[in-house]
Amino acid sequence: MTAGSFKITIHMVASLDGFIAKKDNSVSWFETTDHYEKGITVSGPDIQEFLKTIDCYVMGSRTYEHALELSKSYGWAYGDIPTMVLTHRTLPIERSNIEFYSGDPEKLVNELLKQKYRNVWLVGGADLAKDFIRLKLADEIRLSILPIILGNGLPFFDHIGLEQALHLKDVTAYKSGMVELWYEIKNS
Amino acid sequence: MTAGSFKITIHMVASLDGFIAKKDNSVSWFETTDHYEKGITVSGPDIQEFLKTIDCYVMGSRTYEHALELSKSYGWAYGDIPTMVLTHRTLPIERSNIEFYSGDPEKLVNELLKQKYRNVWLVGGADLAKDFIRLKLADEIRLSILPIILGNGLPFFDHIGLEQALHLKDVTAYKSGMVELWYEIKNS
Repeated sequence: MTAGSFKITIHMVASLDGFIAKKDNSVSWFETTDHYEKGITVSGPDIQEFLKTIDCYVMGSRTYEHALELSKSYGWAYGDIPTMVLTHRTLPIERSNIEFYSGDPEKLVNELLKQKYRNVWLVGGADLAKDFIRLKLADEIRLSILPIILGNGLPFFDHIGLEQALHLKDVTAYKSGMVELWYEIKNS
Repeated sequence: MTAGSFKITIHMVASLDGFIAKKDNSVSWFETTDHYEKGITVSGPDIQEFLKTIDCYVMGSRTYEHALELSKSYGWAYGDIPTMVLTHRTLPIERSNIEFYSGDPEKLVNELLKQKYRNVWLVGGADLAKDFIRLKLADEIRLSILPIILGNGLPFFDHIGLEQALHLKDVTAYKSGMVELWYEIKNS
């Protein structure tokens, strides 16, 4: 990314059959037991370094509520990075780096995010990701595919209703059997 | 594969959002215009060599009808390899290497395919692939993901209703931006 450029990346973890959550919201399926010999491993410090490049997280209200719920067991997943929650509801603010926004996504991006940030990650949910793709607000997709078929749940891409060409930027396979597909969205 | 072993591989080409066909059955979306610098290319002769290792194709009746339709413009896609079409309908036989089977998948596999073949590829459609996964008849999945979001169409994995662990066997990215994910189905 060149200095000064602004980018919104949609990041999702999904099963091979495209589900990002189970119906009961349980998350144990993230811990797959696969081993892919040719895959890479990433150290904790490297992950921390990488996460520091993210300026701001954007999420929908249910993703936020789910993250709050999970934080009771695992801690808050998004650190001290500013986090914008799109919602029309009144929700508890449990951390000082969380802001709520009740306007439309285009206004959020153009009037707020572009003024303050460069590297924004949209981390869910599926509806919000779809809105951003439909509105041509998202620049990249990083989809991490776990080695499992869930068979049921909340689909990431659920008949988005729009044909969209992509450019493959990179593919990374991990020792855990997870594969990350990184695409640029050809919005022009 | 060790000599004498029998294996059924499900092979599908899908969009990133998991569709294997458009509603109008058009196939021009297979010809994506992406270029992935780090990807590999495979020569025609290499593809031919690879295809020779396949002993038998299995497909459903609509996939067969679609292949017949496409063969008028592009030729028959499955060469002279024996092809078994699972159907209860009466369909035209336009090539001598095509057989019809109207029994259930388990009988087909145990009483027929296992007797004659070793490396069987199931090439569609989605319903048949799901039946084979549910019945634990499939051993591997090779899913080729094209760099496009279709937004609509026939989904490959459509709420299969069964959780199934996978083992990542290999990942191959092509110059065309297509990524092939190759999994073993952990049936035991």
